[in-house]
Amino acid sequence: MSTGTENQVLVIGGGVTGMRTSLDLASLGIRAHLIERDRSLGGLLGQVNRVFPSMRLASDIIGPMISEIEKSETIKVHLSSEVRSLEEHDGLFRASLSVEGGPDIELEAGCIILATGLRPMDPTIIPEFGYGRYPEVMTSLEFEALLRSSERGIKGSGGAPVKKLVFIQCVGSRVERRGLPYCSAVCCMGAIKNALILKDMDPEMDISILYIDIRTHGKGWEDAYRQARKAGVKFIRGQPSMVTKRPRAERLVVCGENTLIKELYEIDADLVVLQVGLEQTLDSRELISMLKVGIRGDGLPDDEQVDGVFIAGSSESPKDIASCMAQAGACAAGAAGYMLRKSSNK
Amino acid sequence: MSTGTENQVLVIGGGVTGMRTSLDLASLGIRAHLIERDRSLGGLLGQVNRVFPSMRLASDIIGPMISEIEKSETIKVHLSSEVRSLEEHDGLFRASLSVEGGPDIELEAGCIILATGLRPMDPTIIPEFGYGRYPEVMTSLEFEALLRSSERGIKGSGGAPVKKLVFIQCVGSRVERRGLPYCSAVCCMGAIKNALILKDMDPEMDISILYIDIRTHGKGWEDAYRQARKAGVKFIRGQPSMVTKRPRAERLVVCGENTLIKELYEIDADLVVLQVGLEQTLDSRELISMLKVGIRGDGLPDDEQVDGVFIAGSSESPKDIASCMAQAGACAAGAAGYMLRKSSNK
Repeated sequence: MSTGTENQVLVIGGGVTGMRTSLDLASLGIRAHLIERDRSLGGLLGQVNRVFPSMRLASDIIGPMISEIEKSETIKVHLSSEVRSLEEHDGLFRASLSVEGGPDIELEAGCIILATGLRPMDPTIIPEFGYGRYPEVMTSLEFEALLRSSERGIKGSGGAPVKKLVFIQCVGSRVERRGLPYCSAVCCMGAIKNALILKDMDPEMDISILYIDIRTHGKGWEDAYRQARKAGVKFIRGQPSMVTKRPRAERLVVCGENTLIKELYEIDADLVVLQVGLEQTLDSRELISMLKVGIRGDGLPDDEQVDGVFIAGSSESPKDIASCMAQAGACAAGAAGYMLRKSSNK
Repeated sequence: MSTGTENQVLVIGGGVTGMRTSLDLASLGIRAHLIERDRSLGGLLGQVNRVFPSMRLASDIIGPMISEIEKSETIKVHLSSEVRSLEEHDGLFRASLSVEGGPDIELEAGCIILATGLRPMDPTIIPEFGYGRYPEVMTSLEFEALLRSSERGIKGSGGAPVKKLVFIQCVGSRVERRGLPYCSAVCCMGAIKNALILKDMDPEMDISILYIDIRTHGKGWEDAYRQARKAGVKFIRGQPSMVTKRPRAERLVVCGENTLIKELYEIDADLVVLQVGLEQTLDSRELISMLKVGIRGDGLPDDEQVDGVFIAGSSESPKDIASCMAQAGACAAGAAGYMLRKSSNK
């Protein structure tokens, strides 16, 4: 295969999927341009504290990948860069990048791998959960940041240690209005992972997880669910109707119905974590459209195959890290196979 | 890369994962030996009626893959063949195959991809569900076979049309005794898929799905769950305590507790389908051990990486077809990258 631009790949998105894809392409001897709009690689995983099942710091996974990418002679990283246009002509893709503080760049490639990921949705569309109103209500990603900075014990907004914590599952997921119709696939395990970390810090911490269905379908996930129950984490079936404060009270109170025992609950909480759904951004939708891939009503791409185009990781549908890595490898193999076939047909 | 045996791959298992892996290797120009113990390729998927979300016949997916494999000049298929021994020496794997009705074969390879899949467990270990006692109680895979042969309307063991049908979820999954500790990941969607097919055949059919948690975490799965509820499929939370027949009655009766309304149920059924868990076979465990990969208590392989060894598809952990395909591609890329690296280091 020649080293012309028709045999290189543009990987759009520098999260774990885009990084893994670029490294897998490199291992197959294929040049990749890795394009990231932020100033650094890492994506959403870069904002996470620890990952299940190894419970290693996410930075310990991302760090070595970034070093490997920096050392690679076949991966060219473009940071602070956004794809402005993307066109295909005669099997060759042409992309125009706008680069922060620099001139635009034009790139050519034989394949595009889209790995822009999903973004946590804004929970203010569900005002009854109090996000934006109470500083003690935060999103899952904000909670990951809090955990990263305070692994010896978390403190609430007033500085006092958090003794009672509530996770609310499916915030904006699995709904027909005010959110996303699909399951975001990683939020149950995310809450269980953090509940285990918190119980490890403070076995006395009172932790409730308010759920609709517990979805621990991945490898080792059901074990972790069992372990959390044994550690005393309370799993309560039924989303709350509201998160509020009683007059003059300091603590939040989470109100709802336990759908298993048909009783109303009112749970005091120092901190409420909203496990928010993951949505396709408008920018990603635009990129998907530029690539002539159809978009479903829920914002995810159609499954049809467009020549030379591969959609990897969460942009394709919400998935955990292991599944993102697997799809990254599959897309690298797919792109390599596609370009080999094209060059041998010439 | 030379065409010596150190640059070819043994793919063990000719189900959808092994077939996809072999084709992905072929697309990268790598020779593969595809080893299958049965007389034909297809594996578990070959016993399935239709697949979600396309609702195409599984045979329409497998058929073209088999044709492509047969046409490939780089894939050598070994049917009715079992791996008897597997050794690694100096980075080269040597396998001995026993072939039904033929002499043994010795093969060498630079990589092994294990794709032997999982097997539905035997539900007689849970005698209260009546499997083996009542012919109207069958496993999910037996039900797939029934559907394949009777897509215009299913009939019970007595020949009368089935009007009332019950799916029991998590039979032998998610349990600490009498089964597997993990979630088998595909059984919720399997029941929903077939409920939709049945409702399409006969909108009046009375279908109940008895579940613990509904796990529709994949792409389009939650939509299908919603669609099934709209079509009148009853989702009842709570596994039954037993499946039995009243004296002199023809129909089965499924008894249990609805854990949402705290009421006992007794559901008449012409047919009961047990959505049984998926387990690692003893033979696969032996192969995993021969490859020096650790085995967890639940029979699934450890996640550690052994040079030149890749475990793909359900053998790694239960997963749906799309995820099997993705992991197949990732393992093909992994094997190709590994062998390229080795040959360039020489």
